[in-house]
Amino acid sequence: MGNADFLCPPTSDHQQQCAHRVAIPPAQPFFMSFKNSLKETFFPEDPLRQFKNKTPSKKLILGLQYLFPILEWAPRYSLKFLKSDLISGITIASLAIPQGISYAKLANLPPFSASVNSSFIPPLVYAMMGSSRDLAVGTVAVASLLTASMLGNEVNAAEHPTLYLQLAFTATFFAGLLQASLGLLRKCARVYCGFLSHATIVGFLSGAATVVILQQLKGILGLEHFTKSTDIFSWRWESGVLGVGFLFFLLVTKHFVQQETTQVLLDISNDALTSVILGSLLVYLTHAEKHGVQIIGNLKKGLNPLSFGDLVFTTPYMATALKTGIVTGIIALAEGIAVGRSFAMFKHYNIDGNKEMIAIGSMNLVGSCFSCYLTTGPFSRSAVNFNAGCKTAMSNVIMATAVMFTLLFLTPLFHYTPLVVLSAIIVSAMLGLINYDAAIHLWNVDKFDFVVCMAAYIGVVFASVEVGLVVAVAVSVLRLLLFVARPRTFILGNLPNSTIYRNVEQYPNANNVHGVLILKIDAPIYFANSSYLRERIIRWIDDKEDKLKSTGNTSLQYVILDMTAVGSIDTSGITMLEEIKQTTDRREIKLVLANPGAEVMKKLNKSKFLEKIGQEWVYLTVGEAVEACNYKLHTCKPAESLPWNIV
Amino acid sequence: MGNADFLCPPTSDHQQQCAHRVAIPPAQPFFMSFKNSLKETFFPEDPLRQFKNKTPSKKLILGLQYLFPILEWAPRYSLKFLKSDLISGITIASLAIPQGISYAKLANLPPFSASVNSSFIPPLVYAMMGSSRDLAVGTVAVASLLTASMLGNEVNAAEHPTLYLQLAFTATFFAGLLQASLGLLRKCARVYCGFLSHATIVGFLSGAATVVILQQLKGILGLEHFTKSTDIFSWRWESGVLGVGFLFFLLVTKHFVQQETTQVLLDISNDALTSVILGSLLVYLTHAEKHGVQIIGNLKKGLNPLSFGDLVFTTPYMATALKTGIVTGIIALAEGIAVGRSFAMFKHYNIDGNKEMIAIGSMNLVGSCFSCYLTTGPFSRSAVNFNAGCKTAMSNVIMATAVMFTLLFLTPLFHYTPLVVLSAIIVSAMLGLINYDAAIHLWNVDKFDFVVCMAAYIGVVFASVEVGLVVAVAVSVLRLLLFVARPRTFILGNLPNSTIYRNVEQYPNANNVHGVLILKIDAPIYFANSSYLRERIIRWIDDKEDKLKSTGNTSLQYVILDMTAVGSIDTSGITMLEEIKQTTDRREIKLVLANPGAEVMKKLNKSKFLEKIGQEWVYLTVGEAVEACNYKLHTCKPAESLPWNIV
Repeated sequence: MGNADFLCPPTSDHQQQCAHRVAIPPAQPFFMSFKNSLKETFFPEDPLRQFKNKTPSKKLILGLQYLFPILEWAPRYSLKFLKSDLISGITIASLAIPQGISYAKLANLPPFSASVNSSFIPPLVYAMMGSSRDLAVGTVAVASLLTASMLGNEVNAAEHPTLYLQLAFTATFFAGLLQASLGLLRKCARVYCGFLSHATIVGFLSGAATVVILQQLKGILGLEHFTKSTDIFSWRWESGVLGVGFLFFLLVTKHFVQQETTQVLLDISNDALTSVILGSLLVYLTHAEKHGVQIIGNLKKGLNPLSFGDLVFTTPYMATALKTGIVTGIIALAEGIAVGRSFAMFKHYNIDGNKEMIAIGSMNLVGSCFSCYLTTGPFSRSAVNFNAGCKTAMSNVIMATAVMFTLLFLTPLFHYTPLVVLSAIIVSAMLGLINYDAAIHLWNVDKFDFVVCMAAYIGVVFASVEVGLVVAVAVSVLRLLLFVARPRTFILGNLPNSTIYRNVEQYPNANNVHGVLILKIDAPIYFANSSYLRERIIRWIDDKEDKLKSTGNTSLQYVILDMTAVGSIDTSGITMLEEIKQTTDRREIKLVLANPGAEVMKKLNKSKFLEKIGQEWVYLTVGEAVEACNYKLHTCKPAESLPWNIV
Repeated sequence: MGNADFLCPPTSDHQQQCAHRVAIPPAQPFFMSFKNSLKETFFPEDPLRQFKNKTPSKKLILGLQYLFPILEWAPRYSLKFLKSDLISGITIASLAIPQGISYAKLANLPPFSASVNSSFIPPLVYAMMGSSRDLAVGTVAVASLLTASMLGNEVNAAEHPTLYLQLAFTATFFAGLLQASLGLLRKCARVYCGFLSHATIVGFLSGAATVVILQQLKGILGLEHFTKSTDIFSWRWESGVLGVGFLFFLLVTKHFVQQETTQVLLDISNDALTSVILGSLLVYLTHAEKHGVQIIGNLKKGLNPLSFGDLVFTTPYMATALKTGIVTGIIALAEGIAVGRSFAMFKHYNIDGNKEMIAIGSMNLVGSCFSCYLTTGPFSRSAVNFNAGCKTAMSNVIMATAVMFTLLFLTPLFHYTPLVVLSAIIVSAMLGLINYDAAIHLWNVDKFDFVVCMAAYIGVVFASVEVGLVVAVAVSVLRLLLFVARPRTFILGNLPNSTIYRNVEQYPNANNVHGVLILKIDAPIYFANSSYLRERIIRWIDDKEDKLKSTGNTSLQYVILDMTAVGSIDTSGITMLEEIKQTTDRREIKLVLANPGAEVMKKLNKSKFLEKIGQEWVYLTVGEAVEACNYKLHTCKPAESLPWNIV
């Protein structure tokens, strides 16, 4: 604090460094810089890279390969791959059957036809278009739940099953359309990807899982309505005992297999299938269906009837389907892409997010015309696929074939499957989605992210899925605005024996420089923060002056603003700097800038602020600025102080 | 590019610097850091500073002086001050009369009573509570126009004059309440202040002025309705000639006095008064009122009748009054504070924005109970006050007295004042608000600010005042979000003969360092930009590898991320860094961080990312990081490369 001497005497090295001036970048024609910044904004990874310098026919092949990655890997497909894919395909099929039926039930759709249809066409489409090797296509719990709750608000599935089914297809159609468009319109995709933060998704999924569990538990215990507006259950102990029993079985096996981590997900799949088989056998043998245990019953067969004609494009239902499609489409897409990316990272290959969006969108678009409802790449199924050793998207083709075969020819086996076992499977899967570890991690690392996460959770649980999402996104955006509106400013000090200047709070051994106040502004300067920054900077100057006065030392002579972290400035920000300059002039303090970036220099120059401050008072580093101040303070202060008295 | 040797050999100085490690700031208890950040956010200028270490009685006096600055300056008031204030007070009174009448007419309020009332009580209140010495209180054109257009949507002023008047008072009441509350609730005040950028205000005022001018010109030319829904004018050449004549006179005198800058505003005031006197004389002598020239006519006298009982707090009108009050209150407040701050800066004294808000709010609250409509500190009148040499807020008291005296006893003089002269005065004043110079400046300095400005202008002119404001604020906020969502990343290069690393685009002489890619991330890393940054950074790495490959040099060995400008990071951002780390590990490239700030270090530490990257790979400066990389590259590369092959 009371350091009377200066720490960085000029050296010959320094004189050399001072030869560099802060450069003002050459002015670029407006449309050129506009084009460049558009390109940087919307195409950061330069998607047309590989098309450069190629012949037209080569370009066509590359383009087709871009859209249909199967063209790329099919020629190299070997028997070894097929073996691996066969094993993993059949494994995931065994998971797909109970899961598919459970989720279809969650969505209030006819369990068998919905699950068999959705497990046939979409995986085939994905196998052609998808770029992930590990993604296993299927329906997901959250999207199923959303479909039921959003469509259920308008149409009662029990009363108008046909209309409800049509709306589900229509919603799938819109979801696919949205997903594919997001893939094509990269801009929107980025914006959308950006604003669903990790914290939002954790909170949202946990909230949705909580809602599902509560609903299913009511069903298992036969306490009340099963879902809001369908059949009323009277309390039947048999149903409750069966449900709780299987839930317990599923949780215990899950707990035990978690000890041997590699086998986890594979075993879970078998648990589900085991439960379904055991449950069905039990009911068949005890005739529990006559004691209040609801069973699936007789099934409508038929593989993927054409449903294009069923899509509803008329008011008033289209709006509901559209809304449902948008929400479920976005959620499903987020899961699919995140899953694909995670496994790609494991296996060290790249996934193109846009390509994935187009693939997932297409499979839903096509699916909606063939009686499928919303599919994506569920985490659990893809993990099983990965663990079972899949090599390519061919495993999806095998799964589709296996599921179709089972459900077409082995349906009678499922006649006695009790609904509570399906509920137990759902609850067991949902419990894994309530990610309190992640929430604790958020609390530890970033309190604000925790708030976002809790906002999403509470919104989903106590209001609705839409409210939860909107609240979480709003809180996240608010945080961004707050960050920009309230940037931090730091005092910098000199690290002993160096010309490095750092935040004195972070580096307590950094020394204040006598007679000089060094401030680092830690954010872009915009209209939203310029008035705050003005007040804050002036308060720093006041504080420093008070401190210097109280210690009886000489007064404050220089204020150095370190602009390194000021990425951008607008006209309000420049006005703020002008006001700071007037204030310091009045108090006979010299304002010095250190290291303004390219864009800031450009604007300071255009707005004539550089002329006002004098370009010789803009230094390349804080170290040089301090040295220059020191030099002037010691040698030519009386002469220098005159021109500052601008009144 | 092809620099084969390294530019910054280690020096003894460097070894000393390397003794500093990047510090992880000590963990602070959560509620303490929460309290501190709340304080920094809402009270950046530490308002209770002066109350520290004072006795209770002294605190009371300071508190009263805070609320009533008159207590501070009145004891020091001298005869010399009074002389100056007397001159400036009478000068602004001569401006206040024609302006006040014109603006009252613009607001569809009874011209005389509204203007006399609004020029009496509010200036007196402001004289006691205001902290500006130069602000002259009065009504303003934009707020008057807004009052007319927003209230006029609900109530026709011609059909229900009493109700309309009551609503105007009620709107004033709400505006005052809002303004005073903003002063007390500092939080909202900051948010509000922040989001009306300079560009928004330029566009908004120009737009509003354009609307007013078009309306008044129609009146002057007698073309159509005067204002939307009042009296219809038939075309009368006398009226048109008179209006155009006076408009021409006003514009010419304005143009000429602009040559001698010091006298500008003083002369404008005289122009207005001269026009009114000349116009009235002309009408009186030629009896033009019988030839279609509308005159003010007989006036209702009476000074500030109590109007508290007239305030309307019942539906359906209260909502309209509330909305009008909020919009006009905010606009008027922005003008008042901006004006007060500008003149304070000229005369080198400080203005407390919050105190000003409380003063302006109080004067409107009190005013609304005494038949006044919305007042603030208009720029034109305050400028005249300043030029006439005012010393304290006493000039407002003198103006109030002079206006009252004139209008109470000299009203017959205004009987013959033609309305078109008032219109000409309004148009002449409004032309000054269309600030195309400012718009050109915005275009030159910051294209985005120009877009915001034009959005506000077009919104106001072609839709409505509210639409204009909302659009401008929305565009501004979008810009902030876009800045955060699309941060720039730069390649840094070494400035010759130094250890300084700077953006190679800004400093074309900066040299690339061989085998090392140095990237500066120029914004905080948040969920909104983390996926963009991941793609962009990986593309930089790809580009650099391609370039190195094509030149046949050794491959890329190190990626240094300069975190100097990363003010903050959230959990999504940390995940992004982890993904970058995985990618670089896979490609056998070492990831190095340079100079992360306090908050970033804290979070990287908490989230265990520091452990993953290894704290020895976090350097204090880019220079040190490059040196360390060089050293390892030359000495121990084969040994070092092994542990990177983490698969």
